[in-house]
Amino acid sequence: MPASSLILASASAVRAKLLADAGLRFEAVDSRVDEDAIKAGFAKGDKQHGNAESETDALALKLAEAKALAVSATNGHALVIGADQILSCEGKRYDKPKSMEEARANLLAFRGRPHILHSGLVLAKNGATLWNLSVRATLTMREFSESFLDAYLEEAGERVMKSVGCYQLEGPGVQLFETIEGDYFSILGLPLLPLLDELRRHGQVMS
Amino acid sequence: MPASSLILASASAVRAKLLADAGLRFEAVDSRVDEDAIKAGFAKGDKQHGNAESETDALALKLAEAKALAVSATNGHALVIGADQILSCEGKRYDKPKSMEEARANLLAFRGRPHILHSGLVLAKNGATLWNLSVRATLTMREFSESFLDAYLEEAGERVMKSVGCYQLEGPGVQLFETIEGDYFSILGLPLLPLLDELRRHGQVMS
Repeated sequence: MPASSLILASASAVRAKLLADAGLRFEAVDSRVDEDAIKAGFAKGDKQHGNAESETDALALKLAEAKALAVSATNGHALVIGADQILSCEGKRYDKPKSMEEARANLLAFRGRPHILHSGLVLAKNGATLWNLSVRATLTMREFSESFLDAYLEEAGERVMKSVGCYQLEGPGVQLFETIEGDYFSILGLPLLPLLDELRRHGQVMS
Repeated sequence: MPASSLILASASAVRAKLLADAGLRFEAVDSRVDEDAIKAGFAKGDKQHGNAESETDALALKLAEAKALAVSATNGHALVIGADQILSCEGKRYDKPKSMEEARANLLAFRGRPHILHSGLVLAKNGATLWNLSVRATLTMREFSESFLDAYLEEAGERVMKSVGCYQLEGPGVQLFETIEGDYFSILGLPLLPLLDELRRHGQVMS
């Protein structure tokens, strides 16, 4: 089947690597949706989900769906994967840091506390959502020293700004942690096992 | 501090990559212990551990300790990491397959069933064990078709013989699975978070 029968609606190098490593053939397309506008609209109108954590699940799903539908709209033939991930710590949502100073401040806010990674995953085809999934993982940072933090930021460099949590677990970021509870693939940004299961149902992956 | 103050007593490329990715400086030394002899000795004399699964935990620890002590004996100054992993499925232990035919037969035995990866981790110094840890993870393979299995073995190739489970989760092996429960780093072969914690206690990693 042609590679373009499966599209990853994401500019994330990590998500593309996860799919490619798993042996899938696909095309990656940046959806270019206005995430800030969706978040702002959500903050105003969509708070009907009971508590802060389930609201954040819903926002991650909404962003994943917006990406999948935007790419599906111009690729009607293809099965489109949309994914998003939002971090919350003590009920507050965090975006990717825009500077190393913001990364440092966020890591100090996460230090010694658990944070939750909320993953949203959507499959769309012909402009409609076929399937979706919410997954949470809980990661607890240890009480690292400020001198450790300085050395970490120096070593990890500007890559920390590519992640909502200011870390890559497959790099020195693992040294930030005390415990990690949840699916590793979801933590990296794509709940791979349920996604593969659903792709098998659609005949996109061999059973 | 010199790289040789920390030694990984293992020839495993995956374990070395996990430590290097985490930002550690170390030397990797193949312990060249006779694992088959240790397993044979264990089968004869060491079955005082209650049940099959805890016996397998003990064997993984014994192998990890043998590797760490062997390397520590000739590197008295260094902190030495020994690690081992054993797979059990329905109470039976499996070694790395010695041929593609054996890999195929093992995967058919694992299909549709859970298997347990028993990890043993030991730190040694001056020829003595300082610390050890046992970790289990449970992975369940799905009911894949024989045509999927043939395609998988063709794609994964002889790399499957480098793993007790005949798979690399960071490759097409992930397509074999229905569920994965347990720490990802332990599944790859090294319980990284508790190891880092212990290395911090020994001043080998910055706190």
